[in-house]
Amino acid sequence: MRLIDQTQLPLTEQYIECDDYQRVAEAIRRLEVRGAPAIGAAAAYGLVLGARSVVMAGQKLDQRLPEIAAELKATRPTAVNLDWAIRRMMKVFETNRHNRTDAELSAILEAEAVSIAMEDSTVNNKMAEWGAVLFDKPTSVLTHCNAGALATVATGTALGVICQAWREGHIKEVFVDETRPLLQGSRLTAFELSRQGISVILITDNMAAWVMKTGRVQAVIVGADRITLNGDVANKIGTYGLAILSRTHNIPFYVAAPISTFDFSLIKGEDIPIEERPQDEVFNFAGVRTAPLGIQAFNPAFDVTPAEYVTAIVTEVGVLWAPFPDKIKLLAKYQI
Amino acid sequence: MRLIDQTQLPLTEQYIECDDYQRVAEAIRRLEVRGAPAIGAAAAYGLVLGARSVVMAGQKLDQRLPEIAAELKATRPTAVNLDWAIRRMMKVFETNRHNRTDAELSAILEAEAVSIAMEDSTVNNKMAEWGAVLFDKPTSVLTHCNAGALATVATGTALGVICQAWREGHIKEVFVDETRPLLQGSRLTAFELSRQGISVILITDNMAAWVMKTGRVQAVIVGADRITLNGDVANKIGTYGLAILSRTHNIPFYVAAPISTFDFSLIKGEDIPIEERPQDEVFNFAGVRTAPLGIQAFNPAFDVTPAEYVTAIVTEVGVLWAPFPDKIKLLAKYQI
Repeated sequence: MRLIDQTQLPLTEQYIECDDYQRVAEAIRRLEVRGAPAIGAAAAYGLVLGARSVVMAGQKLDQRLPEIAAELKATRPTAVNLDWAIRRMMKVFETNRHNRTDAELSAILEAEAVSIAMEDSTVNNKMAEWGAVLFDKPTSVLTHCNAGALATVATGTALGVICQAWREGHIKEVFVDETRPLLQGSRLTAFELSRQGISVILITDNMAAWVMKTGRVQAVIVGADRITLNGDVANKIGTYGLAILSRTHNIPFYVAAPISTFDFSLIKGEDIPIEERPQDEVFNFAGVRTAPLGIQAFNPAFDVTPAEYVTAIVTEVGVLWAPFPDKIKLLAKYQI
Repeated sequence: MRLIDQTQLPLTEQYIECDDYQRVAEAIRRLEVRGAPAIGAAAAYGLVLGARSVVMAGQKLDQRLPEIAAELKATRPTAVNLDWAIRRMMKVFETNRHNRTDAELSAILEAEAVSIAMEDSTVNNKMAEWGAVLFDKPTSVLTHCNAGALATVATGTALGVICQAWREGHIKEVFVDETRPLLQGSRLTAFELSRQGISVILITDNMAAWVMKTGRVQAVIVGADRITLNGDVANKIGTYGLAILSRTHNIPFYVAAPISTFDFSLIKGEDIPIEERPQDEVFNFAGVRTAPLGIQAFNPAFDVTPAEYVTAIVTEVGVLWAPFPDKIKLLAKYQI
């Protein structure tokens, strides 16, 4: 599997060749591949690489595959697509394991990983179409982190919507939060949007409130890493603050997420595990130390936005408007 | 005049020798010296250097000093202390110019600059004492940007209060916003506080909302660059968002500012000019380019927090509690 190394963007386009599942796990852990749907697809392919190595080593899939699945699952705790993709792969494995050889199972797993990736592309397009309807006149929009091509298999979730609305002539410009500590906004989102010729205005995260106050944006749209049954949304740290600010300024706050991002097993946001990442990400950037020694840092990678702050959620089967609980329950029937 | 170069902190302690007023103006423009009260004092000394050079060149102060004053004043538009210090210096000049020689006037200006600096030290101590009373039990507090020793002549405004409350045993730890784009929080505030043995927890600006939501802080205190008659507060970009988030989480939002920061000529925040700084500050992080080429950035250095979000303002003559208009009018009588 070949991955673009997202930690090197936007200045260097470097690719990583993953020959074994361990390298895939490492890529997820290091954020060389990131974004909930992209992590799901990468993990599915990782499991295929794992299955192949088991077969080639003459070991038994029955014994080793669950271990490999667990290892891949443990790389990042917050995005549910990872869990979803691994569960989907293991379900295919369980269904077929009694009447197939390990070599056949390995091929079946590969076909399933390909399906996951291909479906994500279809899902992206459908979300883009549903979401673009939210923008019916020229709008300046604000986004956070990266919910684009780099976060998915195809055009993205929130950025897919923005690009579609832009093609329809309804996006004036996109304000992009740089998204500290890892700068997915400036490095990835600004890169993707500007490559498509869309006007980008980069801001630091702490400018969003003033951008809203001064009337520079009329909508906010972000992706999600996990959504619970009540509509609470886990997403990149900073999303929760943005949602509050949107409410204060009467600006709609939209979330774009495929059904694979919904966790139908969790009732509310408080149940979502929030990944804390190394303190060094806050102390440094690009190898430059910016803080003194001898202090602490707090580095939650995500936060949870209560459903009450979310105006609507764009999915591949349509736009869900608040209140969400009943609509999300209906979504569950589409779940694979 | 000798200034610590704040752009080099926390990793390098480097000093700048200012032999002429042009170098002082440059230091203010480049943020080598920053913080509203520190800018005021530096500009006063800059005017002294200007007066001396005029005298030494055999030119007339009457002609040149107003030009130099205007040049120093134009370095940064938002902080009112700069304007206040220059006005105070020019008033002394006007009072004495008809019955003093230029050499005598130069010495009188120097004495006034020394007074401005010395008074700031007294004012810092008084603010610290009044402000510390706000913390009557062990509290975790959040601050933004740098309102400390480096922003003033002595112990600081908001950080002076924090340090005094800490000495009284009422500060558990200080959450410090890193304060993009120029990182005054991580570079300066974290440096100052940790040097004094105070527990610092550094966060990126977009984490503040989650820090509040998870109950990690019980108060926010910041400095100010200009306060209008109605209590609106101009301060480092990001302050306005923090104030909204504080309100949402029922956390008191305090501002610490000397009387010299009040602009008794302005009714409301909308009248404050907001400095926009070069886009490069947003494109780069600690000297490393982090954004793609071919995009725009928006870089307001300040924002305005409406008085309705401010719980109280700590000054050297006491704590003003909202509502502010009548109390700020009373403050005017203390103005020099």
